[in-house]
Amino acid sequence: MKELFEKIINEGTVLKEDVLKVDSFLTHQIDPELMSLIGKKFADKYRDKNITKIVTIESSGIAPAVFIGLELGVPVIFARKQKSLTMTTELLTASVYSFTKQTTNQISISTKFLTSNDNVLVVDDFLANGQAALGLVELCGQAGASVEAINIVIEKAFQNGRSLLEEKGYIVDSLARITSLEDNKVHFLEE
Amino acid sequence: MKELFEKIINEGTVLKEDVLKVDSFLTHQIDPELMSLIGKKFADKYRDKNITKIVTIESSGIAPAVFIGLELGVPVIFARKQKSLTMTTELLTASVYSFTKQTTNQISISTKFLTSNDNVLVVDDFLANGQAALGLVELCGQAGASVEAINIVIEKAFQNGRSLLEEKGYIVDSLARITSLEDNKVHFLEE
Repeated sequence: MKELFEKIINEGTVLKEDVLKVDSFLTHQIDPELMSLIGKKFADKYRDKNITKIVTIESSGIAPAVFIGLELGVPVIFARKQKSLTMTTELLTASVYSFTKQTTNQISISTKFLTSNDNVLVVDDFLANGQAALGLVELCGQAGASVEAINIVIEKAFQNGRSLLEEKGYIVDSLARITSLEDNKVHFLEE
Repeated sequence: MKELFEKIINEGTVLKEDVLKVDSFLTHQIDPELMSLIGKKFADKYRDKNITKIVTIESSGIAPAVFIGLELGVPVIFARKQKSLTMTTELLTASVYSFTKQTTNQISISTKFLTSNDNVLVVDDFLANGQAALGLVELCGQAGASVEAINIVIEKAFQNGRSLLEEKGYIVDSLARITSLEDNKVHFLEE
């Protein structure tokens, strides 16, 4: 997706060989117009797939997810990393290990929002080691919901997230696939 | 705003005399179409005010904020409750006390995204005791940015958030103002 590639090249910063900072349009400051384009791009591919729910995780997944949801006319659920005061009903929960922080978090979704009738698009801003996406598909599995695909804005294709997800039979669909961040430069997969 | 009132009446749950649960369309599951309407509603009032940035706080403020940002063609910044790995530059920080959790959190925004040239709409999902909104306007003040107004989706008008903000000279603009949750019913302010 041309607009996304340009944004990554013009505004992304390589902090380390495995860390790309895109806080000017995705992870801290958000570019709503770009998010709207991303929403349309993904939605166009899944319009005939009877998607019933979008499932993402707070916080940076929410902006792309709501635009996909708007285009497809379906609700968006964001998994919470901490239980909120009003999460009083039964919860689906999964553990998500963070390699960067070396901590494990419980993520959760209220059972009432996901059922075995649902066909889900899982959405996240980044795919690296795949732990967040694995947690989200586990929540869908607990509800008996099917997962049509996992939609990723930026994939670090040099990490093993995609292979972990594909081994389990999931379709991973990323808008920007980065093969390396060597020499402080972003290298995209040629497609 | 009729669509919002109906949604609150049909789907909101009064948990206690001061707690309204709206997790089916705002705080956990999100209704993108309603968020888009909310975005248009707010944006229409501020189109001629030279707004340059939308400032909100993760996570439930993000969905209404991105639609206001889309309509006005300006970036959205969400303050973080925890520092992320890539927040390596200078930060604006403020303390936010949570009455419900009885804890104080530091919220932060990277200095590079807010300057004295900015004219900001502050956005949040709920206004109750006003602590989150006060934290957000403090961050804007630290940057020297001006705050045009504080846009709130649901205001609990029986709590003191509005008066705290108005005493400091801020304009509070809420789409739904709730005067009481007595008898397990939502009572709106007649306008």
